[in-house]
Amino acid sequence: MPPPAPLRICFFGDSMVNGTGDDACLGWVGRACAAARRGGRDLTCYNLGIRRDTSADVLARWQGEADRRLPPEHDGRLVFSFGANDCCEGEDAGVRVAPHRVLANAETILATALKRRPTLMVGPFPICDPAVDRRTALLSAELAALCARLGVPFLEVFAIAAGSAAWVGEVAAGDGAHPNAGGYALVAQAFDLWPAWRRWLDAA
Amino acid sequence: MPPPAPLRICFFGDSMVNGTGDDACLGWVGRACAAARRGGRDLTCYNLGIRRDTSADVLARWQGEADRRLPPEHDGRLVFSFGANDCCEGEDAGVRVAPHRVLANAETILATALKRRPTLMVGPFPICDPAVDRRTALLSAELAALCARLGVPFLEVFAIAAGSAAWVGEVAAGDGAHPNAGGYALVAQAFDLWPAWRRWLDAA
Repeated sequence: MPPPAPLRICFFGDSMVNGTGDDACLGWVGRACAAARRGGRDLTCYNLGIRRDTSADVLARWQGEADRRLPPEHDGRLVFSFGANDCCEGEDAGVRVAPHRVLANAETILATALKRRPTLMVGPFPICDPAVDRRTALLSAELAALCARLGVPFLEVFAIAAGSAAWVGEVAAGDGAHPNAGGYALVAQAFDLWPAWRRWLDAA
Repeated sequence: MPPPAPLRICFFGDSMVNGTGDDACLGWVGRACAAARRGGRDLTCYNLGIRRDTSADVLARWQGEADRRLPPEHDGRLVFSFGANDCCEGEDAGVRVAPHRVLANAETILATALKRRPTLMVGPFPICDPAVDRRTALLSAELAALCARLGVPFLEVFAIAAGSAAWVGEVAAGDGAHPNAGGYALVAQAFDLWPAWRRWLDAA
């Protein structure tokens, strides 16, 4: 059997996708991709997480940035993760982007993405601010339901991160919102074990 | 003395900026940024290297991608590195982008960049194809002269990479163009020691 074709994967989202706060400069994205490469899978990682990005910001930019990175003749894939910045305090019913708008943005993004490339969604992350995190936890469940309806595999990470002493401790020792290497390693491990991701890595 | 303000740095360029081929998924960019963070410098790394990008491709996209990542209230910086793809076989006088066009593209990019943000340039890399590398070595010298004229610090990396047994060996063991962890670590070390980069890290 020939080896599986090389993958080029764009990861779109916010600071948690960027890996902000990680002294190893890998984040969960870099760790998961490195694990795949070490396991023999040829993949190219494009990390397109931007600090403070909401669902509206990702909606506005993802297609242009993806088109420049995923030429049609290559096996390109898309992974999205956003939501916590939408839940921060702002002027849309008290938050930066109201939940019904986040869900509409996510549906537009994912429905368009699915028509072009295999697509995965990772849920939003806690930022260790109780009021924001309460809203983000609810949003994560709503995004899970949306993804189920659209047929996009969804990985819930909110509880994994919020329930981890490593994550919470590193946030407190860091900038108050982002973990460091230990927290990101935990999420990378969960992502690495996710059956939807394993199917990408194992398929020819 | 207060700690230096956090930096947000966009690295624009080609596959060598992306770190293609590195099983650690860091490349020289990730390694240099991780070294800076471990040294106590708070920085956010945006890796915007794209495989097969020429100077013309970078010219067309860098401003939009930088604007989305570097809000005016933060200390944003720019690093560019391109040129080897321009020197590959193509239809502009036998190459993808003729040298006089590369220099014009680079001048447009760097002159615009300098007006907005502190800017550095890293020279083009060998891809271990003798005909391409011959052209790239010449282009690297011309880019160095251009940068001297514009006042942009320039790091020559062509000879470092081409003269390294680690780099050349990893290219041969890999896809024939890109090194792996050892080659990228060598360039990261040269970048880390570069006085122009040290001034960014050490300045308050």
